[in-house]
Amino acid sequence: MADGRNLQRLRIDGIEIFTHALKAVDPVETVKMHLKLEGAIIRVDGKTYSLRDYANIYVIGAGKAGASMAQAIEVILGDRITKGVINVKYGYLSELKRVKLNEAGHPIPDENGVMATQEIVGLLEHLHETDLVICLISGGGSALLTSPAEGISLQDKQKITNLLLECGANINEINAIRKHISNLKGGGLARLAYPSTLIALMLSDVIGDPLDVIASGPTVPDESTFGECMAILRKYNLLGKVPGSIKDRIQRGIKGEIEETPKSGNPIFEKTHNVIIGSNIIAVKAAEQRARELGYTPLILSTFIEGETREVAKVHAAIAKEIVKTRHPIDPPACLISGGETTVTIRGKGLGGRNQEFALASALGIQGLRSVVVISGGTDGTDGPTDAAGAIADGETIRRSHELGLDATAYLEDNDSYHFFKELGDLLTTGPTNTNVMDLRLILVG
Amino acid sequence: MADGRNLQRLRIDGIEIFTHALKAVDPVETVKMHLKLEGAIIRVDGKTYSLRDYANIYVIGAGKAGASMAQAIEVILGDRITKGVINVKYGYLSELKRVKLNEAGHPIPDENGVMATQEIVGLLEHLHETDLVICLISGGGSALLTSPAEGISLQDKQKITNLLLECGANINEINAIRKHISNLKGGGLARLAYPSTLIALMLSDVIGDPLDVIASGPTVPDESTFGECMAILRKYNLLGKVPGSIKDRIQRGIKGEIEETPKSGNPIFEKTHNVIIGSNIIAVKAAEQRARELGYTPLILSTFIEGETREVAKVHAAIAKEIVKTRHPIDPPACLISGGETTVTIRGKGLGGRNQEFALASALGIQGLRSVVVISGGTDGTDGPTDAAGAIADGETIRRSHELGLDATAYLEDNDSYHFFKELGDLLTTGPTNTNVMDLRLILVG
Repeated sequence: MADGRNLQRLRIDGIEIFTHALKAVDPVETVKMHLKLEGAIIRVDGKTYSLRDYANIYVIGAGKAGASMAQAIEVILGDRITKGVINVKYGYLSELKRVKLNEAGHPIPDENGVMATQEIVGLLEHLHETDLVICLISGGGSALLTSPAEGISLQDKQKITNLLLECGANINEINAIRKHISNLKGGGLARLAYPSTLIALMLSDVIGDPLDVIASGPTVPDESTFGECMAILRKYNLLGKVPGSIKDRIQRGIKGEIEETPKSGNPIFEKTHNVIIGSNIIAVKAAEQRARELGYTPLILSTFIEGETREVAKVHAAIAKEIVKTRHPIDPPACLISGGETTVTIRGKGLGGRNQEFALASALGIQGLRSVVVISGGTDGTDGPTDAAGAIADGETIRRSHELGLDATAYLEDNDSYHFFKELGDLLTTGPTNTNVMDLRLILVG
Repeated sequence: MADGRNLQRLRIDGIEIFTHALKAVDPVETVKMHLKLEGAIIRVDGKTYSLRDYANIYVIGAGKAGASMAQAIEVILGDRITKGVINVKYGYLSELKRVKLNEAGHPIPDENGVMATQEIVGLLEHLHETDLVICLISGGGSALLTSPAEGISLQDKQKITNLLLECGANINEINAIRKHISNLKGGGLARLAYPSTLIALMLSDVIGDPLDVIASGPTVPDESTFGECMAILRKYNLLGKVPGSIKDRIQRGIKGEIEETPKSGNPIFEKTHNVIIGSNIIAVKAAEQRARELGYTPLILSTFIEGETREVAKVHAAIAKEIVKTRHPIDPPACLISGGETTVTIRGKGLGGRNQEFALASALGIQGLRSVVVISGGTDGTDGPTDAAGAIADGETIRRSHELGLDATAYLEDNDSYHFFKELGDLLTTGPTNTNVMDLRLILVG
């Protein structure tokens, strides 16, 4: 311990850094930071909108942070809001004055979602040039904003999604097809909103913040085509398996009987302003700043981290070991920061989430390193089907677990990280944060 | 590309950095660097040995770099060497004057290895206080230096090793037992050499360079006990399965009828000087220096990298993406350097090695990033059962592979990285380097 920072101090600092990062992506705060009302002017990231130009302001959107984001908009614009409809996950409600919240199914879309989205479509269909639409997008927006194209049922949509997942299609291929069988995805929402002015505020839960992927890009140009959709169906031999309604739509699209998704350069997008107000890199940078303030050398590893959780943890533990042994890549006291979202291949029957599993695999990796603390947590405050956001591990975790008669390797094999850390009292619990910008991992080396 | 370093330049620089790192761990050079003859004084890392104090100088050892290391010792000490015996892998020979090379089985020890080791044991048994022994250890030394304890056959030894591997015993548990059924492992060689003076020069092929693990620590104190060995057999329910000779030895050891492995504090080790002359961190630091000279910002990630190759590659690719997108963790032109050794879970029937698989998985991860080059290679010049040391990938690799009709994902699924890169002309071929300090990975971002 270079300057005598003991484990207790490292733990307290780590939680402080984690909490600070969460605040930087709080949906209420981020909306307030990016959308400001100054007199009769709405200012959004450099662009200005005069209230005098608009007869109505509508608030629409979808996502788990919908209620909080709408709350912020109500605080800012108050009764200037004409009307609003936002789709949220069951139970993700709050008291609002102007904006109506509709509950819907997530992660599997349901008929309530279809009806709720129809309400948004109905609103969008009657907009004029003098209307201003504020669209609030956050994690889960794609499932919650579900409006299958004419003739396609929710079941058809789910069937093709399952077929594509089973055959190993990549995410770009899946998205190309989803965008071409939906009224809203792939720029459809922007097209419906035209000729009104559209401001989309997005909390990104996708690695790299690609605008066309977040909630399937309802306000963003789509470069994929019906022709490509057909090629994808052929590639995976799905032509004989897809619902007739979908095959029919794609064939008609190729013939030009159905309009393509709007491409970049389309005038629609001259009236659209897409702004990412919260994302993993924003949380990570906030963590970097706070770590520096607390006297650590921060190092942002990457916000693009993905892969099998326990293997990703090994690489993080390897870096911690190197810091302890040779002071590379950075001098201690150090705070390694990483974001993104890993995956867990379920092998066991235990309870856990990717962040708790990361902490458990890390505990094994940093075993015996008395000056290392690992914190991994979901920024939404939940990790897998548990009431924890993640967990905290340190170089003494495995020794302490032995004293309690716990076999860490067996817990890891059973994907039972939750019960392991519950026994140790090392679950990280934040409660729901109403935001989601994926995960945050901190490795502190004293 | 921050300063216009194109892919071709990045590739050339990467190979230059890789080659420079290999030179830093060349067995001949490292021996010469650490053991010097100045007049009648041998100087080894600060310690000095006067030739006048010794009647004989013996050279012994085992490992794949044995021939090269012995060559260097012969150049330095010439006919001052009384005699020498070193065990090497079949075919790993070279012309020597004083030191005899014995070929033996690796990675599975064989009877030739037992006989060759007996020759070394015979030499060690007749040493006096006026003898100086130089022991040359390198990768493969554990299998090549095989001397089962009295009453235990090579078959017994192999059986217990297989049982331990099958039951999921960890490397510390396996080593504890191996050291207690061997004449040389776990400090046994140092005990036999006593009361002579022993200098052990080691090329480390183990993550973290733990002296007691490299070649099973023949010249290093062993802290494990017969009692622990019994506990391990009980833990994995192996008491009914292990060969009787081994069970018997452990039971007799517990009763004190057989001497324990020598522990730290034992006077034997006052006459032993263990020096790591080549290791992964030395190669990695040489790469760091050369990268800096070529104008890159180097970042040593870790020499402790382990885990499933394709997942480890994802983390490396994630860092490359972050450098391109936000200039974190370091500004381009950047050279990320990582060492250690990953593993490959074989799923397919193709040909490859962990370095080629790393390059292939990385190619998928950095797809489209036009200013990123990945080089991964084994420092021994071989990677899996192939004639390549590794491979080179860049942001254009996947596009180029499409042009050749290659499906990178399918090659990865089939563990067929060798044929993928052979088609592309992107195998990294160095020929045998006669050294082994695990792997070296470079990620250059222009």
